[in-house]
Amino acid sequence: MATFRERLQEAARKHESWLCVGLDPPPGAPQDVETILARVIEATGDLACCFKPNAAFFEAMGDAGHGMLARTIRLAQRHAPVILDAKRGDIGNTADAYATASFDVLGADAVTVAPYMGRDSVEPFARRVDRGVFVLARTSNPGAADLQSERLASGELVYEHVARLATSTWSPHGNVGLVAGATAPAELARVRAIAGPDTLLLIPGVGAQGGTPEDAMRCGANSSGENAIVNASRAILQAPDAREAARKLRDALNAAV
Amino acid sequence: MATFRERLQEAARKHESWLCVGLDPPPGAPQDVETILARVIEATGDLACCFKPNAAFFEAMGDAGHGMLARTIRLAQRHAPVILDAKRGDIGNTADAYATASFDVLGADAVTVAPYMGRDSVEPFARRVDRGVFVLARTSNPGAADLQSERLASGELVYEHVARLATSTWSPHGNVGLVAGATAPAELARVRAIAGPDTLLLIPGVGAQGGTPEDAMRCGANSSGENAIVNASRAILQAPDAREAARKLRDALNAAV
Repeated sequence: MATFRERLQEAARKHESWLCVGLDPPPGAPQDVETILARVIEATGDLACCFKPNAAFFEAMGDAGHGMLARTIRLAQRHAPVILDAKRGDIGNTADAYATASFDVLGADAVTVAPYMGRDSVEPFARRVDRGVFVLARTSNPGAADLQSERLASGELVYEHVARLATSTWSPHGNVGLVAGATAPAELARVRAIAGPDTLLLIPGVGAQGGTPEDAMRCGANSSGENAIVNASRAILQAPDAREAARKLRDALNAAV
Repeated sequence: MATFRERLQEAARKHESWLCVGLDPPPGAPQDVETILARVIEATGDLACCFKPNAAFFEAMGDAGHGMLARTIRLAQRHAPVILDAKRGDIGNTADAYATASFDVLGADAVTVAPYMGRDSVEPFARRVDRGVFVLARTSNPGAADLQSERLASGELVYEHVARLATSTWSPHGNVGLVAGATAPAELARVRAIAGPDTLLLIPGVGAQGGTPEDAMRCGANSSGENAIVNASRAILQAPDAREAARKLRDALNAAV
């Protein structure tokens, strides 16, 4: 069976794209929401290297949301692999249950994970060698600096410490990538430098949050212009023409390399 | 409407207990699992100050788990308030959806939240003044030290920095408590010192993880012997007699003050 990295690279090559289409359901009646998501997937499927639904918006819909998330993942996988944005993190036996929920129940190809609880909160995900794991390093939100940009006595910043650990000791199988936002380009470049050229970076923050495609690729891609998965959610879902918005963003990412 | 703190204190007084009964469903057929959880709730309801289901184990059951979690929360609330152990954390608009999922869809009285993404990942939970929020400070697992025990250039350790921020600037309504494990008693005492006497601490790690009731109360309670919510999950659920195990633990907590 192919690994997440292989499935991602195949879609990236085939679609000439490092664009990740974020699937955050807009508010509305469940049936309408699912139709909107399906339309966006069909409209952008040949322009994306992957899709990224965020679990929160589905959970907020209650019963209707759970089945919708599973069906949305399956639909998106006809075109490209799916990263479940869940930011889970718990002690070993509990993280194990979250890995089952993400990879087996929902069938996601990769998942985002929080680093605060350390190695045993990541291990049950990273053990699944055919799947991908993205550990939060430097996030795209205003509060990111509260902890992540604190300097350690060792000289490293907190997000640098996390980026180093996650891609070395926490990644015995090489399938752990990092999340680093386009809203902080200098920090994104630093994460790339620490992670090395082969690590996959998942880069949110382009569009509604203020990051630019140019910053995302110039600071996030490796020297071959690869391994930077740039996510846009609201910028595509809320566009009058989702396909046109996705095509423009994909082309802007390719032009920035 | 009463606040989470008021509901908790009422149950603690009425049941003379600082014991939190953790509801982590054991493996098994969904119907059997729900019956086991219901039996444990009925057997321990008058011995607990609160209940704590962990979302992971319900999510791992797929469709059957979501309804079961909602029903288990409602059943437990006949006896005491419920802390949903979910350890969520995301950017503002997404954290908002998680708060809806936890408090409105599932109806939990309080929720656990991860601190890595900073203030705007906690704010949508803390805004709900009738609910409780527990931010992870020093967790009970082996990997906790990987990040939480790192020393900052300011002199604080990472978990001390989090404990201070979470109970001051992140808690404008005073409803943010902290998670600190009984497996690291010195760190638990330090968290209590930073948080002050009025902050609620949620203390996992007693029983299967190796922490003792004495350490949990002596290091976690304030000088009046209060505000330390001590959780046991496997030690009660997997006991031959759940009621007897809960009674012994409750009495041991009370004796330790």
